[in-house]
Amino acid sequence: MFAARAKEVVASCRLLAGFSEESGRTTRRFLSPPMRDVHAHLGAWMQRCGMSVHVDNAGNLRGMYPASVPDGPSVFIGSHLDTVIDAGAFDGVLGVVLAIALVDVLQNRHLPFAIEVVGFSEEEGVRFGVPFIGSRALAGTLDADVLRRVDAHGRSIEEAIRDFGLDPSCVFNARAGNRALGYLEFHIEQGPVLDGLAVPLGIVTSIVGQSRLTATFIGSANHAGTTPMQTRQDAVAGAAEWISAVETHARGTPGLVATVGRILALPGSTNVVAGRCEASLDVRHASDETRAAAVATLLDTARQIASRRRLSVQFDTHLDQPSVPMSSALVTTLERAVAAQGIRPHRIDSGAGHDAMIMAACMPAAMLFLRSPRGISHNPDETVVEEDVAAALGAGLAFLDDLAASHA
Amino acid sequence: MFAARAKEVVASCRLLAGFSEESGRTTRRFLSPPMRDVHAHLGAWMQRCGMSVHVDNAGNLRGMYPASVPDGPSVFIGSHLDTVIDAGAFDGVLGVVLAIALVDVLQNRHLPFAIEVVGFSEEEGVRFGVPFIGSRALAGTLDADVLRRVDAHGRSIEEAIRDFGLDPSCVFNARAGNRALGYLEFHIEQGPVLDGLAVPLGIVTSIVGQSRLTATFIGSANHAGTTPMQTRQDAVAGAAEWISAVETHARGTPGLVATVGRILALPGSTNVVAGRCEASLDVRHASDETRAAAVATLLDTARQIASRRRLSVQFDTHLDQPSVPMSSALVTTLERAVAAQGIRPHRIDSGAGHDAMIMAACMPAAMLFLRSPRGISHNPDETVVEEDVAAALGAGLAFLDDLAASHA
Repeated sequence: MFAARAKEVVASCRLLAGFSEESGRTTRRFLSPPMRDVHAHLGAWMQRCGMSVHVDNAGNLRGMYPASVPDGPSVFIGSHLDTVIDAGAFDGVLGVVLAIALVDVLQNRHLPFAIEVVGFSEEEGVRFGVPFIGSRALAGTLDADVLRRVDAHGRSIEEAIRDFGLDPSCVFNARAGNRALGYLEFHIEQGPVLDGLAVPLGIVTSIVGQSRLTATFIGSANHAGTTPMQTRQDAVAGAAEWISAVETHARGTPGLVATVGRILALPGSTNVVAGRCEASLDVRHASDETRAAAVATLLDTARQIASRRRLSVQFDTHLDQPSVPMSSALVTTLERAVAAQGIRPHRIDSGAGHDAMIMAACMPAAMLFLRSPRGISHNPDETVVEEDVAAALGAGLAFLDDLAASHA
Repeated sequence: MFAARAKEVVASCRLLAGFSEESGRTTRRFLSPPMRDVHAHLGAWMQRCGMSVHVDNAGNLRGMYPASVPDGPSVFIGSHLDTVIDAGAFDGVLGVVLAIALVDVLQNRHLPFAIEVVGFSEEEGVRFGVPFIGSRALAGTLDADVLRRVDAHGRSIEEAIRDFGLDPSCVFNARAGNRALGYLEFHIEQGPVLDGLAVPLGIVTSIVGQSRLTATFIGSANHAGTTPMQTRQDAVAGAAEWISAVETHARGTPGLVATVGRILALPGSTNVVAGRCEASLDVRHASDETRAAAVATLLDTARQIASRRRLSVQFDTHLDQPSVPMSSALVTTLERAVAAQGIRPHRIDSGAGHDAMIMAACMPAAMLFLRSPRGISHNPDETVVEEDVAAALGAGLAFLDDLAASHA
């Protein structure tokens, strides 16, 4: 039904991928110059669809499509417009483009609630090492201290906002009003699950909790040629044993993922037994209890390995983020909307964090995943299936009509 | 017998440790400014001992103590004057100071051969990433291409030589003459073996061969939250399994040491399954056959691990240095000299490379190790036992007298 629209949505995402800080690849960080071009391009389209458009002081692009009645409540639909470095064309952007396309599809038909489309300024955390700047401003959970964080060039968030022509002292005015019915986000899955099951759409039930920490094994740096194997206190060998144990534990625990993605040996010379080795740990599970138990087990395993090898081990916890459930009412509404497209509704947990997780703090939130072919994301090869985009548009329209019926 | 001399030798090494590029710690790289102060200090002492002194065009400090007969042959005694970063006071320097002290002990008595004391300009490879610049110049094995290598500031070896006031076009004149009876080097063990056995001196029989390579495991970078454990191609997990296998193999092979001292995961983010992981490998054994077999086994193990995990693995060989035997005649002479000090001669392989390994290419070479308390080296806590220094001086004198008797 929306085949032509879906083609336009995909073409639009690919066009926007060219709005980049770097030629030849897509990199678009918080309030970088190409973000202004994205705002201009999408803002013009929003206006053509009958929306009033502005950029709030947190740098979010916002388009308001009025309700059919005065002072009606609002439904927010959005995702983020920033990207990782060397990104694909769909992570984030697809959700904003789909939101505008949905309003476009309404063809000036108004619903008993306003639709506010949001293109969040920041979700990836690339420029300042802190994610969700855009949605935190809307949800009212942006900490004032965060604004003083600086990027690699020593420029603070506050200064970046001012450089873009906005007013950082008014950033808290970006907050969404109280009369919101809910938040809906379209996003690519960024994982292989739906593709593996040959399912086009996934209805997100929760955004799984995350623990992030660094384990530092400390032994004794020594000469690689003159130190017999038996007398070594090799921090890399200790970390390696632990990394294997982390993998084994996660494989044996249904739904658990645990990752060591960063490892650093010191002094880090070919001919020196490492005296120190830092390894990151990222643990996620839909159940906070299972996640906490897994972290406790893995820390204990690290302590046992260290003790047996005459090493010590220290832990630094960076994140302990509980699981965030999506609104069960909106999940049910989305299921009906997906079923209406002739697609069997499939529930899925999101292993990645999303703006919907932040928005859930201030309004009912829901997410619809589009399958990611081969699970590829954060990569120029990231793509979507046009038929899935058409189905998502259809489901989005059914979702709005369903909400409209219950709020008429 | 040489207790007072030994105390002076140790004090002299500690004094020279203050001649550093950095205040508060010892760092003295090839032809850095403090090297000039070391040359001035040791050169003056050499002259007081009756040596004629010059700095050759490879930056080596050379002191010639004439033979008792015209046109006598030479015995070289030396070690290196450069240090690692944040070094101890004895690695290298002790061998030069002991060599001068030995000539000093002769008290103007001349032997039927000249004694040439050499303080090599470079052994550690810190400044240019290539070791043994000093001894290679003497041995005639310095490759002209090496002179164009640059340091971290883009300065070449050639330029460094010129900056120091020397003539790089004459660097090959540093070569030792043909009439050398042999080379003797005193050096700290830099390992825990002698200390563990409570043995003060070790007679080096060979400098073990080394293989150095990098193994790069290549998988697929992916999202740490959205990629199930079963579908991952995690390069860090593959490398970790291999590192454990390397350690197990080395522990099970007598005399073998194998080390992974450097590891790098890419992209190296906490929340990304690594698509690439580089791990260094350093393998050493006195037998070249055993070393080659171990390397072959470990590479094969890496291939098997990679294949089972749907990864690929590549190898980059950086060094394949055969074992270098010391002169058996000089080893026997050293054994007699050590026994004459009332110490039971103990043979040992050197797991580290030394200038003696380079000098062995052009003359019979021998090395005497002094025990390293707790095996500590390349560390400010590196030290020596004064009684061992006295015993080394006594053994050195006996060694020279033994050679003199057979060349009278």
